[in-house]
Amino acid sequence: MGLFKVSILGNGAAVPTARQHPSSQLLQHNRKKFMIDCGEGTQMQMQRFKFSYKNMAHVFISHLHGDHYLGLMGMISTFNLFSRQEDLHVYGPPELQDVLNLHLKVSDMHLKYELIFHELKEADLIYEDDRLEISCFPLKHRIPTWGFLFREKDKSERNLLKEFVEEFKPGLEQMYKIKQGADFITPAGVLMKNKEITYHPKPLSYAYCCDTVYDEELIPVIQDVDMLYHESTFDQKNEGIAADKFHATAAQAAALASKANVGKLLLGHFSARYKDRDVLLNEARPVFENTILSREGDTYQIG
Amino acid sequence: MGLFKVSILGNGAAVPTARQHPSSQLLQHNRKKFMIDCGEGTQMQMQRFKFSYKNMAHVFISHLHGDHYLGLMGMISTFNLFSRQEDLHVYGPPELQDVLNLHLKVSDMHLKYELIFHELKEADLIYEDDRLEISCFPLKHRIPTWGFLFREKDKSERNLLKEFVEEFKPGLEQMYKIKQGADFITPAGVLMKNKEITYHPKPLSYAYCCDTVYDEELIPVIQDVDMLYHESTFDQKNEGIAADKFHATAAQAAALASKANVGKLLLGHFSARYKDRDVLLNEARPVFENTILSREGDTYQIG
Repeated sequence: MGLFKVSILGNGAAVPTARQHPSSQLLQHNRKKFMIDCGEGTQMQMQRFKFSYKNMAHVFISHLHGDHYLGLMGMISTFNLFSRQEDLHVYGPPELQDVLNLHLKVSDMHLKYELIFHELKEADLIYEDDRLEISCFPLKHRIPTWGFLFREKDKSERNLLKEFVEEFKPGLEQMYKIKQGADFITPAGVLMKNKEITYHPKPLSYAYCCDTVYDEELIPVIQDVDMLYHESTFDQKNEGIAADKFHATAAQAAALASKANVGKLLLGHFSARYKDRDVLLNEARPVFENTILSREGDTYQIG
Repeated sequence: MGLFKVSILGNGAAVPTARQHPSSQLLQHNRKKFMIDCGEGTQMQMQRFKFSYKNMAHVFISHLHGDHYLGLMGMISTFNLFSRQEDLHVYGPPELQDVLNLHLKVSDMHLKYELIFHELKEADLIYEDDRLEISCFPLKHRIPTWGFLFREKDKSERNLLKEFVEEFKPGLEQMYKIKQGADFITPAGVLMKNKEITYHPKPLSYAYCCDTVYDEELIPVIQDVDMLYHESTFDQKNEGIAADKFHATAAQAAALASKANVGKLLLGHFSARYKDRDVLLNEARPVFENTILSREGDTYQIG
């Protein structure tokens, strides 16, 4: 286990308002941060909610509708003005590289850091470190669009049971040894076997599906994830409009969450027409109870 | 005379903060609106300050640094989602057309309105209607950059003196006739010649100079304008940095305003380093007294 959480920078659909911003999320896994989508104004949202770019070296762009990528060029410029030196990895549809290159050319910007572009062309593992894997998978939208799956690696290290820690309050060195497999002897001299006081931590996972039509082909891909962010642009009475525009309703997001047996469903990409988003929540919850409305600036623990 | 005013949507330099936004202005002349520059987040600023796009058909982009144009593609997309039908004229450096075309292509957007692009290549009259002329002129910055001059046409119609209207309260029809040259007979039977009760209204003018280094070659271009918006990115102790980056200080903006005999100087394009911008105002006012700090969301009458 470790720190694994996602913060919502923008959860609005295409038309921004004073209240809702285009898509962007900041995912944190242990010390590393990852950005998912970067709509117009993302850098202002980062400032507004006082997030830092420290240890943020990877940006994943789902597709090239403006509300998912138009903040990227400004953020890249700002990094340059701040004399960033760390490499920046950008993952997205191939044409995104043309967009970035053209912006750098017309603004005559010479980056002080490496911008490394990774083309998304097929479902694939696109990032890996010793504790996390990130893969992309195709969504069905009007233009080529990618979902992203963040999955912790299975670790050999075990975690201490909370009840054991509370009762016996082991020291740091002792905790480290127990994680590695050591047994424990209580002050009263009783041997506690390692298996009695530890457990195998479940690797956690997060899936991002935005923008997409309702698509049951996603079920095996997102099966059992601990948290699913799925777009819910419309309510049920606009199901026809949703399908026409290759978007989904809140109830459809909930149906998918239920069929894929996910832990928690986070709704987002709300149409600006819903002043009160409870209409969306109220249509989703009967289908999948563990549903929450995402809120800009809020952070959600995964798992 | 008529309605002639400018509203500040963003007056920050390149790095946006939660408090200051990239460059954009909305100028209104009678019923028509014109946008000058369109940095990232401009459409959110339009919403925040409750401005409407009604009668806004012309957007002027000074140059292709991101903080002056990166909001344009999102605004163009939003117009399409709102089913705009009115033509949109965009004026800017030739490469801006490539940027717009690429965005439309990668997002597979088919505009429901005409987007008419006007290349800025030399100092020229670029817009004209029966009451206003707009011209562009070159600024000295790191990449090709244009200033814009909005100048009312000289009208044959005369305006009624305020004192006369207050004393005799003429009716609408009578006011119209006097504007066309008619004399007036008071209730007491005294003849008042047209020249005694009217005046020739001075055509008003507004100049936008952002971004630019201090440049005395601008003096004949902006001579006697009623309001000058001039960048003032830095204070005097950063004059060297300003020159290196082809920016200007507040005191330099004031010196230019004084030498060009403008009516009022509006400062903007502030570096994010100035939490208290009075340092800029205090350096400008001794050089040119009629100086004000622009403020986002505020509207300034021209003349």
